[in-house]
Amino acid sequence: MTAVLEHAFIERLAAGLPRARAQLNRLHESDAELVRLPGDAGVLAVTTDGLAEEIATGLYADPELIGWMLVTINASDLAAVGAEPLGILVCETLPPDVTPEWLAALNGGIRAACEATGLGVLGGDTNAGAAIHLVGTALGLITQGRPLTRRGARPRDRLYASGPLGLGGAYALGRLASGGNGQSVPYRPQARLREGRLLRAFASACMDTSDGAIATVDELARRNGIGFRLDEPVERWTHTAALAAATAAGLPPWMLHAGPHGEFELVFTVPADREAAFLSAARTAAWDPVPLGRATAKPGIKLLIDAELRSLDTGRVRNLFAEVEGDVEKYVAGLYTLLSQQPDRTAAGQV
Amino acid sequence: MTAVLEHAFIERLAAGLPRARAQLNRLHESDAELVRLPGDAGVLAVTTDGLAEEIATGLYADPELIGWMLVTINASDLAAVGAEPLGILVCETLPPDVTPEWLAALNGGIRAACEATGLGVLGGDTNAGAAIHLVGTALGLITQGRPLTRRGARPRDRLYASGPLGLGGAYALGRLASGGNGQSVPYRPQARLREGRLLRAFASACMDTSDGAIATVDELARRNGIGFRLDEPVERWTHTAALAAATAAGLPPWMLHAGPHGEFELVFTVPADREAAFLSAARTAAWDPVPLGRATAKPGIKLLIDAELRSLDTGRVRNLFAEVEGDVEKYVAGLYTLLSQQPDRTAAGQV
Repeated sequence: MTAVLEHAFIERLAAGLPRARAQLNRLHESDAELVRLPGDAGVLAVTTDGLAEEIATGLYADPELIGWMLVTINASDLAAVGAEPLGILVCETLPPDVTPEWLAALNGGIRAACEATGLGVLGGDTNAGAAIHLVGTALGLITQGRPLTRRGARPRDRLYASGPLGLGGAYALGRLASGGNGQSVPYRPQARLREGRLLRAFASACMDTSDGAIATVDELARRNGIGFRLDEPVERWTHTAALAAATAAGLPPWMLHAGPHGEFELVFTVPADREAAFLSAARTAAWDPVPLGRATAKPGIKLLIDAELRSLDTGRVRNLFAEVEGDVEKYVAGLYTLLSQQPDRTAAGQV
Repeated sequence: MTAVLEHAFIERLAAGLPRARAQLNRLHESDAELVRLPGDAGVLAVTTDGLAEEIATGLYADPELIGWMLVTINASDLAAVGAEPLGILVCETLPPDVTPEWLAALNGGIRAACEATGLGVLGGDTNAGAAIHLVGTALGLITQGRPLTRRGARPRDRLYASGPLGLGGAYALGRLASGGNGQSVPYRPQARLREGRLLRAFASACMDTSDGAIATVDELARRNGIGFRLDEPVERWTHTAALAAATAAGLPPWMLHAGPHGEFELVFTVPADREAAFLSAARTAAWDPVPLGRATAKPGIKLLIDAELRSLDTGRVRNLFAEVEGDVEKYVAGLYTLLSQQPDRTAAGQV
């Protein structure tokens, strides 16, 4: 299995640092850090996520969207562990030439996302700097039952997404590719907090698609020593607006799921014998989860593309964007080479 | 009372944002945010603080010191509310040209400060960016009793510091002033977590000197609608290395306490009738608190300079560094104008 460059970098950053005694998860094992609280208070979930590159590259330019994303990217990590939202801290570094109108729009986006997620602002910090740099830290609670983590998926578990995927990739394509048209893709992800809490009773593993669906599926496979066969056709689990963007760009839809910019849906596994109960609970909650496929004992990721199951080297997919230094044209050319040319002839029932 | 520019800015940033329901403190009222936990778990303390300007201006250049400070500035906020350390998250934005040696030294500083404070690293986030930008978020617990806040000081309360003050100002003077010599001042602040926990039983209000001693005393006065008379001579509560730096620079020692860069000691008030018990507990803990003066019903800050009590417009002191846009020469010239020319003739016993 191809090693993931970002893992190596994070492991180097964490090397030699003491871990907190009360922490329940290890590195890479969950979207939010999980800390056992004293007494009967349960588990604290905490996560920190910043926006800098997204602003510097122009991926996010509208200050209202920037504010919305600052809250949403952190709230989404709480969703992926099934936590109740407690609050968020915001650390803002702003250049001196930021206008009051820009700040008001940023605040409007933060406020709207706080209201959508139920996160109150606990506090923060402000600094002066040459470039805009925003860091959020969200806190949540799991007062009863176990938190969701990326670990626990087993062969034959069903793989689902909380909603159609691909808007993150389609949006980034529109903003960053030459000749792209970012205006055409509606991009305003919703942190799936309600769905995450419901999933705690059913899912065996869960992770958000902040880095795109393919990186998410790859990571769930790595954490559990398994593989995934996404035997639902890619078109069926791709958002219709993303499908339209792929068609307009002349790209196969699966490529929209390969990029490192996602849509903050949840991808999760449900044991086969819990699937009916899960779908019933989801229906009651007026939620329509999107089936993707199933877990396999054999490592590796397979996608159903043009009615054929194809193997994809998802480790190399994850490294590619950094390898081409963010060049979108080179990136697309590189992706074509990572899909196996031969369809996979594994019998449909075999896992 | 002169309004503080930074307050106005923070209030504008916070305008219209929903606060978290479980939060115990309001804006500006404590160094760390205080969140009531369910059940019998007590109060969660959480704080976020970043380093960007300090690195960009060259105030902090040694990566080991940068790592040390990233943990210490956040741990110090936990100390000021009397919390037990739980863990810290680190969000690192790094330019592509950062060397492995630089990263290893940064990590060494983070590790050393984690060991000194008892904070384990819970997790973090990494981003690419043009400039180095580091944000820490520290978590702590107060399982029994009330947290310390900036509120609760009353006239006649005694004012103390956890240790001699002025190293933050002396260090900044050495690093930033033309002709300065930063190497001569030892600067490696210790977050006063142990002292903060002891203070929960005795202090009426507490705050750290992250922004310098004068800003801290000014803020405690504002939060409590009182004044302070620092009737211990400035020389007596100024660190000997800072005194030497002031002499070398030809500056009166009080000016080292005026700058916005502090030494992360705690400044706190103790009710007069608790003073003997407090000093006894401190002695038992082998801790030697430094007396500064006392709270007064009348607003305003007075310092004992050259054997005369002088009024200082501390609100204007706090705004001055921003007003001169960080120009150290203009800053020093401006400070001279903010000290009253007439000694204060208030009788010694009057509060």
